[in-house]
Amino acid sequence: MAKKYVYYFGGGKADGNSTMKSLLGGKGANLAEMTNIKLPVPSGFTITTDVCTYYYSNKKKYPKELEKQVKDALAKVEKQMGSKFGDEKNPLLVSVRSGARASMPGMMDTVLNLGLNDKTAKALIDKTGNERFVYDSYRRFVQMYGDVVMDLKPKDKNQEDPFEKIIEHKKEIRGIKLDTEFTISDLKELVEEFKKAIKEETGKDFPSNPMDQLWGAIGAVFRSWMNDRAIVYRKLNDIPAEWGTAVNIQSMVFGNMGETSGTGVAFTRNPSNGDNEFYGEFLMNAQGEDVVAGTRTPLPISQLKKDNRKIYDQLEKIRKILEMHYRDMMDIEFTIQEEVLYMLQCRVGKRTGYSSVKIAVDMVKEKLITPEEAILRVEPEQLNQLLRPIFNGKEKNIAIKNGKLLARGLNAGPGAASGKVYFNSFDAVNAAAKGENVILVRIETSPEDIRGMNASEGILTSRGGMTSHAALVARQMGKVCVAGCGDLEIDYLLKTMKAVNKDLIVHEGDYISIDGSTGEVIIGKLEPKPSEILQVLIDKTMKPSSSVTYSYYETFMKWVDKHRRLKIRTNADQPDQSANAIAFGAEGIGLCRTEHMFFGGDRIDAVREMILAYSEIGRRNALKQLLPFQRDDFEGIFRVMKDKPVTIRTLDPPLHEFLPKTEIEMRKLADKIGTNFEEIKYKVDSLHEFNPMLGHRGCRLGVSFPEITEMQARAVFEAAANVIKEGIIVKPEIMIPLVSHINEFKTQETVVRKAAEEVMKERKVKIQYLVGTMIEIPRAALTASQIAGSAQFFSFGTNDLTQMTYGISRDDSSHFLPKYLEYDILEKDPFVTVDVDGVGMLIKFAVREGRAKRKDLKVGICGEQGGDPETIDFCENIGLDYVSCSPFRVPIARLAAARAFINSKHKAGKKTK
Amino acid sequence: MAKKYVYYFGGGKADGNSTMKSLLGGKGANLAEMTNIKLPVPSGFTITTDVCTYYYSNKKKYPKELEKQVKDALAKVEKQMGSKFGDEKNPLLVSVRSGARASMPGMMDTVLNLGLNDKTAKALIDKTGNERFVYDSYRRFVQMYGDVVMDLKPKDKNQEDPFEKIIEHKKEIRGIKLDTEFTISDLKELVEEFKKAIKEETGKDFPSNPMDQLWGAIGAVFRSWMNDRAIVYRKLNDIPAEWGTAVNIQSMVFGNMGETSGTGVAFTRNPSNGDNEFYGEFLMNAQGEDVVAGTRTPLPISQLKKDNRKIYDQLEKIRKILEMHYRDMMDIEFTIQEEVLYMLQCRVGKRTGYSSVKIAVDMVKEKLITPEEAILRVEPEQLNQLLRPIFNGKEKNIAIKNGKLLARGLNAGPGAASGKVYFNSFDAVNAAAKGENVILVRIETSPEDIRGMNASEGILTSRGGMTSHAALVARQMGKVCVAGCGDLEIDYLLKTMKAVNKDLIVHEGDYISIDGSTGEVIIGKLEPKPSEILQVLIDKTMKPSSSVTYSYYETFMKWVDKHRRLKIRTNADQPDQSANAIAFGAEGIGLCRTEHMFFGGDRIDAVREMILAYSEIGRRNALKQLLPFQRDDFEGIFRVMKDKPVTIRTLDPPLHEFLPKTEIEMRKLADKIGTNFEEIKYKVDSLHEFNPMLGHRGCRLGVSFPEITEMQARAVFEAAANVIKEGIIVKPEIMIPLVSHINEFKTQETVVRKAAEEVMKERKVKIQYLVGTMIEIPRAALTASQIAGSAQFFSFGTNDLTQMTYGISRDDSSHFLPKYLEYDILEKDPFVTVDVDGVGMLIKFAVREGRAKRKDLKVGICGEQGGDPETIDFCENIGLDYVSCSPFRVPIARLAAARAFINSKHKAGKKTK
Repeated sequence: MAKKYVYYFGGGKADGNSTMKSLLGGKGANLAEMTNIKLPVPSGFTITTDVCTYYYSNKKKYPKELEKQVKDALAKVEKQMGSKFGDEKNPLLVSVRSGARASMPGMMDTVLNLGLNDKTAKALIDKTGNERFVYDSYRRFVQMYGDVVMDLKPKDKNQEDPFEKIIEHKKEIRGIKLDTEFTISDLKELVEEFKKAIKEETGKDFPSNPMDQLWGAIGAVFRSWMNDRAIVYRKLNDIPAEWGTAVNIQSMVFGNMGETSGTGVAFTRNPSNGDNEFYGEFLMNAQGEDVVAGTRTPLPISQLKKDNRKIYDQLEKIRKILEMHYRDMMDIEFTIQEEVLYMLQCRVGKRTGYSSVKIAVDMVKEKLITPEEAILRVEPEQLNQLLRPIFNGKEKNIAIKNGKLLARGLNAGPGAASGKVYFNSFDAVNAAAKGENVILVRIETSPEDIRGMNASEGILTSRGGMTSHAALVARQMGKVCVAGCGDLEIDYLLKTMKAVNKDLIVHEGDYISIDGSTGEVIIGKLEPKPSEILQVLIDKTMKPSSSVTYSYYETFMKWVDKHRRLKIRTNADQPDQSANAIAFGAEGIGLCRTEHMFFGGDRIDAVREMILAYSEIGRRNALKQLLPFQRDDFEGIFRVMKDKPVTIRTLDPPLHEFLPKTEIEMRKLADKIGTNFEEIKYKVDSLHEFNPMLGHRGCRLGVSFPEITEMQARAVFEAAANVIKEGIIVKPEIMIPLVSHINEFKTQETVVRKAAEEVMKERKVKIQYLVGTMIEIPRAALTASQIAGSAQFFSFGTNDLTQMTYGISRDDSSHFLPKYLEYDILEKDPFVTVDVDGVGMLIKFAVREGRAKRKDLKVGICGEQGGDPETIDFCENIGLDYVSCSPFRVPIARLAAARAFINSKHKAGKKTK
Repeated sequence: MAKKYVYYFGGGKADGNSTMKSLLGGKGANLAEMTNIKLPVPSGFTITTDVCTYYYSNKKKYPKELEKQVKDALAKVEKQMGSKFGDEKNPLLVSVRSGARASMPGMMDTVLNLGLNDKTAKALIDKTGNERFVYDSYRRFVQMYGDVVMDLKPKDKNQEDPFEKIIEHKKEIRGIKLDTEFTISDLKELVEEFKKAIKEETGKDFPSNPMDQLWGAIGAVFRSWMNDRAIVYRKLNDIPAEWGTAVNIQSMVFGNMGETSGTGVAFTRNPSNGDNEFYGEFLMNAQGEDVVAGTRTPLPISQLKKDNRKIYDQLEKIRKILEMHYRDMMDIEFTIQEEVLYMLQCRVGKRTGYSSVKIAVDMVKEKLITPEEAILRVEPEQLNQLLRPIFNGKEKNIAIKNGKLLARGLNAGPGAASGKVYFNSFDAVNAAAKGENVILVRIETSPEDIRGMNASEGILTSRGGMTSHAALVARQMGKVCVAGCGDLEIDYLLKTMKAVNKDLIVHEGDYISIDGSTGEVIIGKLEPKPSEILQVLIDKTMKPSSSVTYSYYETFMKWVDKHRRLKIRTNADQPDQSANAIAFGAEGIGLCRTEHMFFGGDRIDAVREMILAYSEIGRRNALKQLLPFQRDDFEGIFRVMKDKPVTIRTLDPPLHEFLPKTEIEMRKLADKIGTNFEEIKYKVDSLHEFNPMLGHRGCRLGVSFPEITEMQARAVFEAAANVIKEGIIVKPEIMIPLVSHINEFKTQETVVRKAAEEVMKERKVKIQYLVGTMIEIPRAALTASQIAGSAQFFSFGTNDLTQMTYGISRDDSSHFLPKYLEYDILEKDPFVTVDVDGVGMLIKFAVREGRAKRKDLKVGICGEQGGDPETIDFCENIGLDYVSCSPFRVPIARLAAARAFINSKHKAGKKTK
């Protein structure tokens, strides 16, 4: 039997149903489903996504069976509708629409009113007696077909739409303003003028044969799967190109048949705030695109209740049927043709983060869904929206309309922030000290900017990607960040920035507002509002009981934690960060980077003295100065974290990162520590490395200078001893970074354990501690069995592990990675989501080998990917003990972990309790 | 039963035998063996290496069973010798000697004449009537024991030996010059003065109890396993620290009992030239150390034939017995005590590279061994000695004695070269053009120095290790190289270099001589001599028939090739390199680096124009100029290589490597190509990378700029077409570098295959070619199955694969790797020998997965390790098809491959044909 490429629906029965989205696309599957549950759906048929795949892998040819199957289906539609496609007496018109597996609203092309030519138009006029409607439809059809199929469209943003140009010209001549003011003969002329323009511009005649029109439109829909908009949308929404689109051909119903006709879109609940109310808008005497186009203002659905109670009640009934049937909030499209209601589309409705949580929680209360289902309904990233400060949407739009949009960058640290611009860390800190709100603007940031970043409301950079230093640190600090804003020219000397191709310039001290959720940079001050969740959890400016939002969040997160196996830890270096993380539900610290503690005022001098020392004695003297600082840091963290585990990584970055870079700074340092510039310059030069990422850093420092590890271990254990004496349980876990060979680990472990023994003896206190390692070098993963012989825990450092396994320097990847993603060479940025085939394989291997060697080996992940939902899913599946992410990602990670747990349970075929 | 820690030998029977080297050490096993074959060996016993291991893993304690076993064995020795240890009438004296599994000559400590005290000395005088002999022995004993066991020795090189100081003082007082001139009472006094000095300096009494002496000496031997000399020696000779040493306690026989006594060392054949003659030296009235010490000049063994025919005949008989028994050239130590011959040691004799080959070949002719055994007798590195030019040893020693040794560096490129010093590539090329011999001296080299390196006889650098750019390229070119000569201060401006702490300065144009086999840099001109093999194979200045050396080489290498499975290819970029490689037996090119071809005079300009172009059109124009150059290069190589496969790698290094670095060069370039300095500076800056090794290079360039790959592929196929038309078979294999994801490979494969199709169509010729990939990124190895779906061959790039798997930048490793090796954190430099546990595991995995996917996948290795014997052994064991190394390593690789094949066959328990 020939393969089935065409699925019919109509007359209360359909070949397909809602479970067949992969094959029929979302729209096709739901048209079939609505037909099956007897909703009023105009008859039609769906050409499957298989045809799209076939089309692209066979030089844009169709399978040979397709033509006959389309004809047969069309015949069924004709029979059902009682009219004939292309018939000169009773013509059937159809719409041709794309429909992919996942919703890609507006990304692909659609042709309405297909089947019209001079003869069928006349027949339709005869049939309906509505010449105006027919020529309005005809005009629309030629315009859409010319645009979509014959490709007569503006070549760039600045060019005017060629059809709109003709329309405008005609309006001018006629002295009218609205489309509805056109006379019938105007419309007739427009049809001819459109056709003429098409011929002139494309050299092709507009096809008058309806069957030619149909195949032209089908081809255009398939081609639109690969248009730029669609490619970009897929990239942003993780939709694989292989999925392909289906094509839906459906008999036309007309919302533009006069004042008893109309069209509308609606949601079964409010998609903005989640309220359980019918929500939407409609326009009478209009076709679908008029609602969206914005030329006429649609009316709220509540108006329909007043204007046409019968239709409204029908819709309300359908709303209830759909929610009961789909058990979710649905987004529908409908058309009223002369008082008769037709359903043209239904799909699961998109919604804001808040409404997502609210609807899920409400539906559990309404017993429509289970808590487990509720968890699966909320995307982890949606939860993020509940946590971040936001600008008032209206205010922002006004500013943009007034030309205040300076530039757009990467939405690297979600949230909204406004403040005065400062161009270096020093100025930022000073301004913040005076109580100013600061936005730190840098070409790119480095560890020396940490204090400035910390003092600022937000960070804006002109270079660097989603995983640049600025982006990483900002997300860890929970700061708003717009990164890689390439259109900005920043001048450190003049302390100004300006936008390329715009007359906008910003000086030091000027106000800007940055939206880290959208990447917008706006001149002037917009007031950011903290989310209610934050007001309750972090600011404590709101009582939990007085926030409805919080109560939904709380209910939801309780379910989340009930359905979760993975522990969620956080990456935090400071007591306040740690406290925030706990408020967000962190169950420990998975990565405390001790080097961040080295940058504070007096500390950096001692660090530099240590680095510049020529002997161990010199280094030890400098380290002695650092010890109390580090001990204080750890005490603060231990007090906050209490009985939760705290994983402390020994010094990791190459030493040159701590040294001054400019001659002026070097001279200053020389004066300060009583040496000369040349000596410092020499040391700085001698520490230069060709590939610092693979250079003298991590435990290699500790092997070269065991006294550094010794000081750090001492600081940890002395702090532990002090805090234990306050009656607090402390669980330090010392983590050795950048281990490639078991012997490196052993040397460091020896130093750490010796310090522990000494402190415990001196202070007469027992400290429970672990010594483990980062697995961030491929060789460490490959020799996991050896390493687990000594290490008590593994923590995968996915940033470095990805860099080395993939052979890509994150800092340099901007030279080629964007093209890789654009051209589908890589599906995803491997620094954002774990690369399952490569890095993931190493991780799986190391977990298996490590656990085989040491049964109780604790295994977690502490790289940037620890907060990525897809990575968390992977971590759940391979049985890690915990993931660690930045404090503000903790709730997202909790949700992702719960979803992963539920999904894996379902995959394993087990029943939920 | 208690574990056996002590093995007795004596009276024609021994507990052990020669197969027990691991347990008894080489010396102990051979003493047992010689005893078993009835050679005259003084009775004694061996304490096993297990005790050494126990000692170091149990805080320097012995197993409790040891004391009794030593006592029992000592009793047996006493019985055999008819004397008693410590007896005051008939005392037994013993020697205490170390003896590891592998020979470590002079590295560990020895105590002779042990058991002497005032009473046993007196008894011995009574017994022998030779007071002089006894006090000479006593003096030696106290001196050795004081040095070895009681640690009274010079603290540093400049300090005089405390015992020698006393001896010198006494000689001065007595007005004598030689030890033999001491009177008996002088010797008596020396014993007392030595003991006094020991007490004063160490605070300890010299032990008079022989049993205390014995345990002291045993402990000293075990401790000497970990002395600095021994550690360094093990490192250099790949001897693991875990092996431990045995201790041999043997009854003393005395070569110093007067003129009928003596001692000697000998080889059963000449170790320098391999001649089948008894070769050695002896001294009458002397103990072992006198022969080595150089205070008296020993006599050649031929003199013994004249002086004492009886003993000589006995020795000659033993020589024959040993060669028949051991089937190898042996190194022996003997002592004559009052006309009676004793064997004290025998072991396989060390020999030069040439004698190694000669002895092996001769022994096959003598039917002592099989060709297979002959192959196993010659270490691959020994073969290297046959190929490299050398200085005349005497001339070099005279120069060194005359203070002409400027410095020592790393022996990075073996061989000898002398020439005039030039400090940059330009000057070097010019001088060479005038016919001068040139030594290029650079702080470190970069790809732009290639022409200068090529024009020079040798390269000397003050920075960089064994795998630095200079070292790598020099070895590939077969140039002599001394690298990382840290004591040299090179001044490019003054064009001078001088040695730190020495008054030596070398100016441009001065002659120096560098020995790349030893790392010595000598001021002045020493004449290097090419090896005969080279004169025959490369220079063609000598007929094969007129070189004995060559005839041995040829015979030997024929056997080698008969016993080999692995193919040996070479890394070569030029026709002459390729021709040399073929002369050395290369069976193809495994790596032709196309970028080296980019540095020639006019080419570099076109390359730079290409890089600086702002558009694809600009790049294509520049590439068009490069195409004929590349095509010519390939034609030359194809003609030389004929029907052998040639693996050509597409462009690999980051583009900034081709751009000028200094402002002057940039300005020059700007003038040349008609742009301005700022623009070039901008481009150079924008190409800057933080970690260039993991940056925009390899196939990432080809993905970004497919036109580069296209040009290179075209040049290959056009060259192939041209050469095929000359009637030559051509087998190009295009290799895509730095693939991390199958899709990268696919994009490049598509470009290459398209170019091939086009050229074949244009030229109407069929070209047999393959497209494959480097596996040099861990992810490529991990996804080998996917990649083998498209790639026709894998070539492991072990340099990069090691860098990424190990997380070590080779260029930066000098900051920490030396300490890692010194402190045994790593056993070996992973860039020299494959890291079996880590990198090797990845390679094995990739081979297995790749072959599972594609049965006929060709797999080789083309990194620097391809010429390393141990790595070749690994490659044989995992079943690779070929290894590729620099031309001058090809014979070594052939030998290593044969040895690996034979060894693996033996391991598999199969019989040789």
